[in-house]
Amino acid sequence: MDFEPGKLLKNINSPADIKKLKESDLEQLSKELRQYIIDVVSVYGGHFGASLGVVELTVALHYVLNTPYDQLVWDVGHQAYGHKILTGRRDSFYTNRTHHGISGFPRRSESEYDTFGVGHSSTSISAALGMAVASVYKGETDRQHVAVIGDGAMTAGMAFEALNHGGIANSNLLVILNDNCMSIDPNVGALKEYLTQISTSRSYNRFRDDIGYVLGKISELGPDALGAVKKIEKSIKGTLLKNSNLFEALKFRYFGPVDGHDVKRLVKTLEDLKTIPGPKLLHVITTKGKGYALAEKDQTKWHAPGLFDKITGEIKKSSSVAPAPPKYQDVFGLTLVELAEKNKKIMGITPAMPSGSSLNIMMKAMPDRAFDVGIAEQHAVTFSAGLATQDLIPFCTIYSSFMQRAYDQVIHDVALQKLNVVFCLDRAGVVGADGATHHGAYDLAFMRCVPNMIVSAPMNEEELRNLMFTAQQDNMGPFAIRYPRGQGVMVDWRRPMKAIEIGKGRKICDGEELAILTIGHIGNEAVKACRTVNEQGIYPAHYDLRFVKPLDEPLLHEVFKKYKKIITVEDGTIEGGMGSAVLEFMADHNYSSQVVRLGIPNTIIEHGEQQELWAESGYDADSIVKEIKRLAVSRKTNTLAG
Amino acid sequence: MDFEPGKLLKNINSPADIKKLKESDLEQLSKELRQYIIDVVSVYGGHFGASLGVVELTVALHYVLNTPYDQLVWDVGHQAYGHKILTGRRDSFYTNRTHHGISGFPRRSESEYDTFGVGHSSTSISAALGMAVASVYKGETDRQHVAVIGDGAMTAGMAFEALNHGGIANSNLLVILNDNCMSIDPNVGALKEYLTQISTSRSYNRFRDDIGYVLGKISELGPDALGAVKKIEKSIKGTLLKNSNLFEALKFRYFGPVDGHDVKRLVKTLEDLKTIPGPKLLHVITTKGKGYALAEKDQTKWHAPGLFDKITGEIKKSSSVAPAPPKYQDVFGLTLVELAEKNKKIMGITPAMPSGSSLNIMMKAMPDRAFDVGIAEQHAVTFSAGLATQDLIPFCTIYSSFMQRAYDQVIHDVALQKLNVVFCLDRAGVVGADGATHHGAYDLAFMRCVPNMIVSAPMNEEELRNLMFTAQQDNMGPFAIRYPRGQGVMVDWRRPMKAIEIGKGRKICDGEELAILTIGHIGNEAVKACRTVNEQGIYPAHYDLRFVKPLDEPLLHEVFKKYKKIITVEDGTIEGGMGSAVLEFMADHNYSSQVVRLGIPNTIIEHGEQQELWAESGYDADSIVKEIKRLAVSRKTNTLAG
Repeated sequence: MDFEPGKLLKNINSPADIKKLKESDLEQLSKELRQYIIDVVSVYGGHFGASLGVVELTVALHYVLNTPYDQLVWDVGHQAYGHKILTGRRDSFYTNRTHHGISGFPRRSESEYDTFGVGHSSTSISAALGMAVASVYKGETDRQHVAVIGDGAMTAGMAFEALNHGGIANSNLLVILNDNCMSIDPNVGALKEYLTQISTSRSYNRFRDDIGYVLGKISELGPDALGAVKKIEKSIKGTLLKNSNLFEALKFRYFGPVDGHDVKRLVKTLEDLKTIPGPKLLHVITTKGKGYALAEKDQTKWHAPGLFDKITGEIKKSSSVAPAPPKYQDVFGLTLVELAEKNKKIMGITPAMPSGSSLNIMMKAMPDRAFDVGIAEQHAVTFSAGLATQDLIPFCTIYSSFMQRAYDQVIHDVALQKLNVVFCLDRAGVVGADGATHHGAYDLAFMRCVPNMIVSAPMNEEELRNLMFTAQQDNMGPFAIRYPRGQGVMVDWRRPMKAIEIGKGRKICDGEELAILTIGHIGNEAVKACRTVNEQGIYPAHYDLRFVKPLDEPLLHEVFKKYKKIITVEDGTIEGGMGSAVLEFMADHNYSSQVVRLGIPNTIIEHGEQQELWAESGYDADSIVKEIKRLAVSRKTNTLAG
Repeated sequence: MDFEPGKLLKNINSPADIKKLKESDLEQLSKELRQYIIDVVSVYGGHFGASLGVVELTVALHYVLNTPYDQLVWDVGHQAYGHKILTGRRDSFYTNRTHHGISGFPRRSESEYDTFGVGHSSTSISAALGMAVASVYKGETDRQHVAVIGDGAMTAGMAFEALNHGGIANSNLLVILNDNCMSIDPNVGALKEYLTQISTSRSYNRFRDDIGYVLGKISELGPDALGAVKKIEKSIKGTLLKNSNLFEALKFRYFGPVDGHDVKRLVKTLEDLKTIPGPKLLHVITTKGKGYALAEKDQTKWHAPGLFDKITGEIKKSSSVAPAPPKYQDVFGLTLVELAEKNKKIMGITPAMPSGSSLNIMMKAMPDRAFDVGIAEQHAVTFSAGLATQDLIPFCTIYSSFMQRAYDQVIHDVALQKLNVVFCLDRAGVVGADGATHHGAYDLAFMRCVPNMIVSAPMNEEELRNLMFTAQQDNMGPFAIRYPRGQGVMVDWRRPMKAIEIGKGRKICDGEELAILTIGHIGNEAVKACRTVNEQGIYPAHYDLRFVKPLDEPLLHEVFKKYKKIITVEDGTIEGGMGSAVLEFMADHNYSSQVVRLGIPNTIIEHGEQQELWAESGYDADSIVKEIKRLAVSRKTNTLAG
C-alpha cells in the first residue's frame, strides 16, 4: 500500500522505538499518527473520531509505560487505532476490519500489546483490576495497570461495579477517564453533567493546580515522597469529604482534569502518577475527531463515516443509480413514529444508540416519548418494564449482542411479569466489519427459552412493519423482533400495515420432495437458492416461519407430513436456535424427516462483509443450493418447466 | 392458624386502616408488626432480618403515601414481609414461600400494592423511574414513586445506571437508601465505606440538621414553600459542588441520614419530601434484624435462619440421626480450598454470596486469593477474565439465575478469548422456596450455545469434586459446572479426585429397549425410577451425560444404535436444553429414535419444595417411571429377575 507514514512514524515499529524519541518529538509524532489515521481510514473506512481524539494520549501512554509488561486496557477499543499503529501494525493497518484483516478492536490473539479483547463498552476497569490484583498476588509491585475509558462507557453499570471494587482493592490501578462528552451519540445522563461541571468549575481548576504543585514536589522529595505527598494533599484538601467528588467517594484518588491534547503535560502527569500506588483516576479532556475539522464539528456523523475524500470531506455514497431498499433501521425508526402517532401508548427507549438504531427519528419528533438512557442496557429494559406496568407499550431497541447485557432483566423484569415490552433486536445475525464481539448470533437461542416471550423476525421491510404493528396491540406480552444490520430488499416498502396472527408463518413457494424453513431476512438467500435450483429442475418448498416462538404448528405438521427432507436456515447459532426448535417439534410429534440445519456454526465468527460471512458459515444462497442438491438425489423432471 | 396479631395490627386490613391511626399509635403498630413477623417466621421459616429492619419504614411509608395510587417498589423484596402483612395478607402470611402459598417476594399478580415483581436485587430504581416517567407523560403530577433499596443492592451496576438516568429525568422519584451495611453477607466495596463515612461524619450530621431545619420551615411558608426551600437550601449549601456528595453528583437531592427506627421522624421526613419534586434520595440508617437481639448480632446467620424457637433463639436442625449427605455448596467450598492448596493459580470470586456459595471457606483460609466483589455479577465475570489473562485460574461462583446478569461478560470477555475461567453455577435447576425469580432454569440453554464453553453438571458430590479437579487444569478454557441448591447423595464424599475426560459421559446401568439420558443431580431420580421399574420387569439403560457440551458422541452413537426409545431428563428448560442438544446430535447423524424430553416446561414455575416442583413439572422419579412405562409397551420377562 502506498500510505507514506511521516518521518518519525515510519521508524516506529514498537513502543521501544517511541521511547528513543526526545520528549520534544512527541508532538510531531502525534501529528504524523493523526495524519496516518486520516489517510488510511478515508480510503478504507472504519471508526474515525474516537481514535483521532486519543492520539496524544496514546503516544504519551506508550512513551511512559513499559508496555506490554505494563498493561493497558482500552475500553470499547474503537479508539485504539493509534495504539495498533504504534505497536507493530502500521503496515497492516489498511486491512482493518476487512475479512482476514486485522480487527477493528484490540484482540489478545493479534498482539501482546492487546491485553484484553474488547468491543462492547465498559469492561476495561474490571479487566484491568483483575490484572492488577493478579500482580498483587504475584508480588509484581512495579507493574502498572491502566484502563482507558470514555465518559460514555462510564455510565454503564459494570464500570461502576468495578470502581466500587477497585476503590477498596489495594492494587496499582489507574483509570483514565477520556472525557469527550460523547458516546457514538452525545453522551447523556447525570454523570455527563457532573463531569462538565467539574471540568469547568473554578474550584476544580484550582484543585487541579494544587495537585500539579504536589506532583511537582515529588521528584524533589526523594524516597520519602509518598508520605509527603499524602501529607501535602491532606492539607490541601482539608477533610476528604469536604472536597470529595464522585470518584473520591468511591475511594479513587482523583487527578485532573488535564488537556488530553497536550502531549507534554500528559507525559509529565503519567510519569508522576506511576509513583503513586493504589486506585487513581485521571480525568482527561479530549475532543472526538480532534484535528479533522468536520469530524470535530459533527461527531456522531464522523464516528464511523465510511469512505471519504480527506481533502473535501465529502463522504462517498454507493454509486448505484437505481433506488435502493432502505436500511431496516430506518424502516424501524420511521414506522415507530407512524405507529406512535396513532397509538398514544407507544414509547421509545434506546441505550445510547439513537442514531445507530434510528430511534433518533422519534426522539426528534416526540421528545417526551422517546429516551436515550445512556450505555445502560440493564436499566433500559427494566425502565421499559416500569413503563409497561403503567399500561404503556415501550419499544426498547437494543442491538442483539448488547441484549446479552440485559438478559436477566428480560427474564426477571419483563417475561416473568408478562409485561408488554417490545424488544427490537437490531443487528441480529452477523454484523460485518465489527466482527466477533458484535455478531448477534445467540439471540434466537437465548430468547426462545424464556417463558411468555414471543420471538419473531421479518423477512423484509413490509414484514418488519407488520410485526411492529402486531406488537403494539394490547396484551401482547413480551415481544421480540429481530432484524439484521443494513439494507432490506424492498424499494417500495411503505405499505399499509396489518396485524399478523401470533405464531403464523407463511409459505413462500410450494415444492416437491424437499422443504426449506427460514426465519428472518436470510430467507431471501433461500429465495435466490430456489430460483437457481428451479432452473435445474429442482423444486424445493420454502416457508418463512416468521416466529421461532411460538412455532407455527399447523404449518410444521403440513411440512413434516409432506417432506422427508428439510433444510432450516437462520442467521444465528445452530446450537439451540430455530433449527433446534424445529427438531423439538419433530420429536414431540414423532415425525422422522431428515433435517439439516444451516446457520452460524459453534465457532467464533470473525469480521468481514455479511455476505462473506454467510458464505463462510455455509448459509448464503450458494451454500443453500449445494445443500439442496446434496439432498435432492432423486430429481424429477418438472413438466411445467419443460 | 393461631397467630394472634396485636390489638392494632388485627384491625389493619389495608393501608387505609393505618391512616385511621393517630401518629402516636405508629410506634405500637410497629412493635406489633415486628412481633407478628417473629411469631410466624420462627414457625414457618423465611427471610427474617431484612423485614425486621424496615418495620418502622414500612409503617411510615404506608401511613404517608397514598398506596397503591402512589407507587412503592421494594428492591429485592425479601424485606417486604411487613408490607405484605399491612396490605391484606396478614392472615395468609403463614403460607409464605410454600407451594401454592404467597410468594416470599412482592408479586404483581398477588396484590395491587405490589407494583413490581422483584427477587433479584437492584431493579427498583429503574422500575420506579419507569413509573415516574409514565406519570410525567400522563400528567399525574400528584403521584409519588418510591424505590426502597439497600446499600448492598446499590452496589450493582444497574442501580447506578438508573441513578444516572433518574438524575436528569424530571420526574417525581424518591429513592430511599436503606443502609444497614449488609447484603446477605456484610456489604463490601468503596460505596459501603463512603456511606459509613457520611453517616458518621460531623459535617454531614450538621448538614442533616440544616435540612431538618429547612424542611421544618416548609409548613410555615405556605404555597410558595418550594421556591423558598430551594433558596434556603442554596444558602445553606453554598456552591453545590463544595458540598456535593456522590448522589448529588448524580443530580439527586440528598436528605439524611435519618434513624430508620424512629417512626415519627420518618413520617415527618416523608411528609416533607412529598412536597419536593424531582429526583431525591433519602438515606435511612437501619439495623438488620432490629428488635431480635440474636438477629442483630449475627446478621448473616439470621438473614433466613429456617425455623427457630423464638424464645431461646435455637435454630432447629433436621432431626435425622443418620449422617446426612453434605450440601453441594459445602462440597464446593471445601474442595476449592483443597485444590487451591496444591494449585497456586486458583483464585475464588463471588458477587456477594460468600456464605450462600460457601466461598467464605476459602475467603477465610486464603484471604488474598478469594474475593467478594459485591452485588456485581458483571464485574465478577470480567474481573475473573482479567485474572485469567495473567495465567491464574479463577473459580467464579454465581447462582445460575444471577448468571443471567453476566451473560454478555461470559460471551464477550471469557468465551471469545477462550480464557480459563471456571463458572460454578450454584442453585441450578429449581431452587425451592425462593421461587420463579430464582430458579436456575435456563443456564443449560444459554450456556451451551456459547462457543468455546464446556458445560457440565455432576450427578453427585464425587462427580462435583472430579469436575472441579478437571476444570483447574491448564488450558481448559471456559468451563461451567452447574449443581443444585442443597444436599447431594453421598455421606462418604471426600474421595480422592481424578480428572474426567472432557465430554465423557458414563453409563449408570445397561438396559433393554429403552435408554434414559440424564444430566446432573436429577439423574438420581432416574436411578430411583429404574429401581422401581426393574421390580416390574422393565430394564431401561441409564447414562449420565456429565457434559452437555461437548456431548459424548461415542456414547450417543452407542445409545442411538441400540435404543429406539430414549428419555432425556434435566433439571432445566426443555426448550434448548440438554434434550435439544441430543436431538441435534440425532438429526446431525441421521438417527431416528423416539426421544421424549423431560425437564422444566416453558411456563413460569412457582415456589415450593424442590421435590414438589420436580413432580409438578414431570421429572421426579414417579414421573420418570410413568414415562418409562408409557414407552415400554412391549415388556419382556427378564430372565435374571425371574
